[in-house]
Amino acid sequence: MDTFVPTFTGTDRTIVIVVGVVALVALAIAMVLRAQVLAAGTGTPRMQEISAAVQEGASAYLGRQFRTLAVFVVVVFALLFVLPADSAGERIGRSIFFLVGAAFSAAIGYTGMWLATRANVRVAAAANTEGRERAMQIAFRTGGTVGLATTGLGLLGASFVVLVYVGGAPRVLEGFGFGAAMLAMFMRVGGGIFTKAADVGADLVGKVEQNIPEDDPRNAATIADNVGDNVGDCAGMAADLFESYAVTLVASLILGSAAFGAKGLVFPLIVPAIGILTAIIGVYITRARANESGLATINRSFYISAGISAVLCAIAAFTYLPSNFADFGDNFAGIAGNPAVIAFVSVIIGIVLAAVILWLTGYFTDTNKKPTQDVARTSLTGAATVILSGISVGFESAVYTALVIAAAVYGAFLLSGSLFVALFCIALAGCGLLTTVGVIVAMDTFGPISDNAQGVAEMSGEVSPQGAQILTDLDAVGNTTKAITKGIAIATAVLAATALFGSYSNAIANALASAGEAAADAADGMASFVSNIVSPNTLVGVLLGAAVVFLFSGLAVNAVSRAAGAVVYEVRRQFREIAGIMEGTARPEYGRVVDIVTRDSLRELATPGLLAVFAPIAVGFGLGTGALAGYLAGAIGTGTLMAVFLANSGGSWDNAKKLVEDGNYGGKGSDAHAATVIGDTVGDPFKDTAGPAINPLIKVMNLVSVLIAPAVVTLTVGSSSNTAVRIVIALVAVAIIAAAVIVSKRRASRLEA
Amino acid sequence: MDTFVPTFTGTDRTIVIVVGVVALVALAIAMVLRAQVLAAGTGTPRMQEISAAVQEGASAYLGRQFRTLAVFVVVVFALLFVLPADSAGERIGRSIFFLVGAAFSAAIGYTGMWLATRANVRVAAAANTEGRERAMQIAFRTGGTVGLATTGLGLLGASFVVLVYVGGAPRVLEGFGFGAAMLAMFMRVGGGIFTKAADVGADLVGKVEQNIPEDDPRNAATIADNVGDNVGDCAGMAADLFESYAVTLVASLILGSAAFGAKGLVFPLIVPAIGILTAIIGVYITRARANESGLATINRSFYISAGISAVLCAIAAFTYLPSNFADFGDNFAGIAGNPAVIAFVSVIIGIVLAAVILWLTGYFTDTNKKPTQDVARTSLTGAATVILSGISVGFESAVYTALVIAAAVYGAFLLSGSLFVALFCIALAGCGLLTTVGVIVAMDTFGPISDNAQGVAEMSGEVSPQGAQILTDLDAVGNTTKAITKGIAIATAVLAATALFGSYSNAIANALASAGEAAADAADGMASFVSNIVSPNTLVGVLLGAAVVFLFSGLAVNAVSRAAGAVVYEVRRQFREIAGIMEGTARPEYGRVVDIVTRDSLRELATPGLLAVFAPIAVGFGLGTGALAGYLAGAIGTGTLMAVFLANSGGSWDNAKKLVEDGNYGGKGSDAHAATVIGDTVGDPFKDTAGPAINPLIKVMNLVSVLIAPAVVTLTVGSSSNTAVRIVIALVAVAIIAAAVIVSKRRASRLEA
Repeated sequence: MDTFVPTFTGTDRTIVIVVGVVALVALAIAMVLRAQVLAAGTGTPRMQEISAAVQEGASAYLGRQFRTLAVFVVVVFALLFVLPADSAGERIGRSIFFLVGAAFSAAIGYTGMWLATRANVRVAAAANTEGRERAMQIAFRTGGTVGLATTGLGLLGASFVVLVYVGGAPRVLEGFGFGAAMLAMFMRVGGGIFTKAADVGADLVGKVEQNIPEDDPRNAATIADNVGDNVGDCAGMAADLFESYAVTLVASLILGSAAFGAKGLVFPLIVPAIGILTAIIGVYITRARANESGLATINRSFYISAGISAVLCAIAAFTYLPSNFADFGDNFAGIAGNPAVIAFVSVIIGIVLAAVILWLTGYFTDTNKKPTQDVARTSLTGAATVILSGISVGFESAVYTALVIAAAVYGAFLLSGSLFVALFCIALAGCGLLTTVGVIVAMDTFGPISDNAQGVAEMSGEVSPQGAQILTDLDAVGNTTKAITKGIAIATAVLAATALFGSYSNAIANALASAGEAAADAADGMASFVSNIVSPNTLVGVLLGAAVVFLFSGLAVNAVSRAAGAVVYEVRRQFREIAGIMEGTARPEYGRVVDIVTRDSLRELATPGLLAVFAPIAVGFGLGTGALAGYLAGAIGTGTLMAVFLANSGGSWDNAKKLVEDGNYGGKGSDAHAATVIGDTVGDPFKDTAGPAINPLIKVMNLVSVLIAPAVVTLTVGSSSNTAVRIVIALVAVAIIAAAVIVSKRRASRLEA
Repeated sequence: MDTFVPTFTGTDRTIVIVVGVVALVALAIAMVLRAQVLAAGTGTPRMQEISAAVQEGASAYLGRQFRTLAVFVVVVFALLFVLPADSAGERIGRSIFFLVGAAFSAAIGYTGMWLATRANVRVAAAANTEGRERAMQIAFRTGGTVGLATTGLGLLGASFVVLVYVGGAPRVLEGFGFGAAMLAMFMRVGGGIFTKAADVGADLVGKVEQNIPEDDPRNAATIADNVGDNVGDCAGMAADLFESYAVTLVASLILGSAAFGAKGLVFPLIVPAIGILTAIIGVYITRARANESGLATINRSFYISAGISAVLCAIAAFTYLPSNFADFGDNFAGIAGNPAVIAFVSVIIGIVLAAVILWLTGYFTDTNKKPTQDVARTSLTGAATVILSGISVGFESAVYTALVIAAAVYGAFLLSGSLFVALFCIALAGCGLLTTVGVIVAMDTFGPISDNAQGVAEMSGEVSPQGAQILTDLDAVGNTTKAITKGIAIATAVLAATALFGSYSNAIANALASAGEAAADAADGMASFVSNIVSPNTLVGVLLGAAVVFLFSGLAVNAVSRAAGAVVYEVRRQFREIAGIMEGTARPEYGRVVDIVTRDSLRELATPGLLAVFAPIAVGFGLGTGALAGYLAGAIGTGTLMAVFLANSGGSWDNAKKLVEDGNYGGKGSDAHAATVIGDTVGDPFKDTAGPAINPLIKVMNLVSVLIAPAVVTLTVGSSSNTAVRIVIALVAVAIIAAAVIVSKRRASRLEA
């Protein structure tokens, strides 16, 4: 299919420029929303002081994180520069746009964090003096800023690449997506370790040992805990969703270009541009009605904007796309169906998928629904039953979510008899999902901001009980919206990965063709490639793919435990050595805990990060393309289930605790409460560290595979095959992973000693 | 490959008869060992009374279980009778040997339970009066009986089928393996639910609420708890390992016959026959040395018998097999390598795999090793850290185990350039693993017997502190051996499933050929079959396969929670309504708890059982053979990781609790102890219900796929293709699964109301 070189008509070029303008409009509106948020009242001096400490800690962490990651970025930049591509221009463009993708990802993360740390005190102040509606509005507008910035930057980057590179866009976009995904993965892992190490450490000493409430200013880890909410749940999440947006878009552009040339490059840009327009509407119509739960408000604006998106996408499909495949060229004459209808239905599948996941995740994690209420009730029989029931909820909801995603993939696949068109349909369903990302990010950012506002209020001690109750309610809504975002993010991961799987096959086919094999076109290439896919080789790949997901999750959970241990020792030391903390006469050294967590999380993020990048290299070069295909499939399958399981069991435990704290089953201080606190602590690294990082993990591994595929084929078949080099590369990759795992285990032993 | 019809020479026939005789010898020696166990002293009247109550409860449960399962067996027998096969004789043989496999599986389970319930009191008595060596000897000989019966019956069945059916043996063996696997799966699930519902229920009321020790006779659930050890850990485990044995053997015979004809049918019988001989040696040489841990004794006899097996297999390979592939016939002239060497190395790979898993699992779960000691130490910071560290240990060990298994599969695969020979090598590695099953079963049975002996001792109150300490030590060894068995069982599952995956492809190829497609030979058939395997279809299959493993695990854990809830209410009721229980003046009604658990576990086993049988039917008929292949791969990959994770995290929590009970970190009654009890309770359904049932689950799903493959192909391609019928079958299967899940959830709501 590489022979299909797209050329733009004047209309096509105009549309791409319009899309770029829409992206710029989104960024401009984000600035307006930002100004509105910053204009809100900033509360009492004490609240401002706390907020300033959180801002400082978060900035310091992100600054150090970016310096650490710069090393990785430079190394990968150099490797990408070396990897073969169709032309030198594409190779250089790919490397440069890798940097752009990484920079955008970082910028989005930084923006999200910057604004969130300023919004928290404003939300707390509003809850205290202006009431629930106003507090919710500020929180949601902050989310809107991040949401529009995420989608605006993603679309701007993609439309720019398409405009400049046209036919060479796919290679360059691979770099862009890879940069975004790699940085997001590191930010998810590092931020996730930070936030949960601080949270778990604070809880273990504060709630469990000293019996003081969460966010109590006597606990030296409270500021670190609040910093964590911002660097993990805000910065990490924003980067993650930016990456989901960018990679899904990239996958559809790659496949669209391969399948349909120019129109296939343009249509996937139109759909998310529509999404931006409706996200703007969504953000502005979000207004809480009296006596309505926060979740109902958010859901309403989601459904309204999704509905508008669907209508606009229908108009776009039927005006821009032809009604007959033959109009694309002679190659397409044999394909049945109406392309406009097929494209429209694909997009609708994506939008419906988002809505179903929203509903499903809400059902499984909301405090008003049966599953979480069941988990809360098991607190009467102790912590063990809380853990078991939360695990059951997680398993069950993971299965339903996977079934829904599988149905969407299969539905899109059934739309066309041609494999490449079917793959493009799946990518378009991803684009449909993307139309909701603006609102989704807004919803998600809502979570950490309410959480933090609650922290600021609690620490300042200057918020009225009514104000505190408002913030508690908003926080519970935030737990559910966070779980929903993770569900949506993993759905984009599956759709993007399935589409990338297709471009992986295409990369193999092209490489086989240029290696002088019989594979003259993609269909032949694919048949040749798959001839050994049923072999045990592939099954070994599937097993390894599943294993990487488990290893990655285990490493992340372990990193949190280790870093939390360091926090525990430091907080205990401060209680012991600084007289007067418990009486409130002396202030703990908050900054020291922030420093410790910063140092530890940056050290811990290396191992899982290296695993994600080097495992596909080891499998690909070591066992070949068949095993690598199996590996990706195994990682996608297991990763999807594991990610949803971790996110939803964690969300459910957190809200079960909230239910007990609201006075059910004995309320705060009862045995039931202690049991749910244990559940929540177990859930913390599940839902905020390991679970969300699986989403960028899947995409990083897929993109690495697409990037190395030509090199693997070159070393495997044809005249330049070289088994020794292939094996050496694989062994080096294995050695890097093994060294990273061993070093992180050594460190653990040293810490414990 | 179906054209290769094996014919036996006189030597071949003689060898098969000798194998059958070896199987009979194993059964005879099992009888001798049984008599030796029964001849041991039976302790005090109080101990005998308790033991009798356990025997009665266990027999009653198994009796009712078999009556329940009879319905399933009859239905499947009828379905098998209808499914197409090459000839009517094979079809009838397959159905009949399905019954034989199921009956053997049941018989092994029943025998294991019967002897274990009699051995427990004898081990307790020996520990009390004759010391550690004698107690260990009785426990290990009981295990030896079950081990030799398992291997003897498995080999007897297989050699009989080979002798009678020769060329038709593969089809008939599919029935034999399927019967064994299906019954084992139900026994694993039902027994697993029973044992853990009773255990968790007993602990929740006894240890947590009433603060009385485990196995205290005042707890109404103690007898049920001990019954559970026998029906779950003994009967379920024995049936499971019989199934592993039978299915692995069946897979190698099917592939051997397809690849090499007569010699391919005979050699896979010789290897396990050698295993039986060395197992007999292993059982007789197991003698505890002074000051040696129980695990060291068991490991020594394992390594000695494995070494002997290796030597004998080398002799068998080099005398029976030719040194050149061309000797098998013209078809094989092009294949490089020495068949004898290749076969020998395959078997060695299997034996080494068993040894590595033994070592690895021992490392991760033994009380003397770092991982479990780390888990125990985290008890100082509370239950949440115990849970998290146990989960980390589980994830990590699952990854290493999966890597080892993957390496074995890949290693065997590399032995030959011909795909079918490579598949046969993988199956032969499975046979190598089988040579250790006799000793493995003996080791495993050791676990529940020591656990039960401890229960009998505690309840009778008539065992000296020294005797009690001996039993506690043996119980800790038992926890590790149980985890090891699960590791070995899952390894056999992967090897057998990979091999069956090959025969699945073969079944598709044959069916395509007879459907009049171009696929005249297996290679063409396979290429045609795989032409759409990289399509999204397959990825959807992988996702569904992973989802089924999660759903199955969630259902099993949930079932335990529900059944344990019923136990809690009953025990509480007895404490409340029967005056004098706590003072020891009145006796609780043990039988009522046994009845409740029996009823609940039989009701609960239906849903996961139906899922295992009908999910592949729904995927195969609904989405086609490509998706079904993906489904199997996904289930194998995720299932392997999940099974080891559940087994090892559970084993590690159990032994962490033992470490604390031995006086570390505050000992019994401390907060640390409470934290490890929570870990152990969470781990109970992990390691004894959900985890071990995944092994037969994988095999049942694989065998169902092999059995339905021809029908799926007939309905998909060729003149008799019929989409409507295909879709209706899939929808009926989906409806059955959905109905089962909904009914089990309804029941849950009713119970809670």
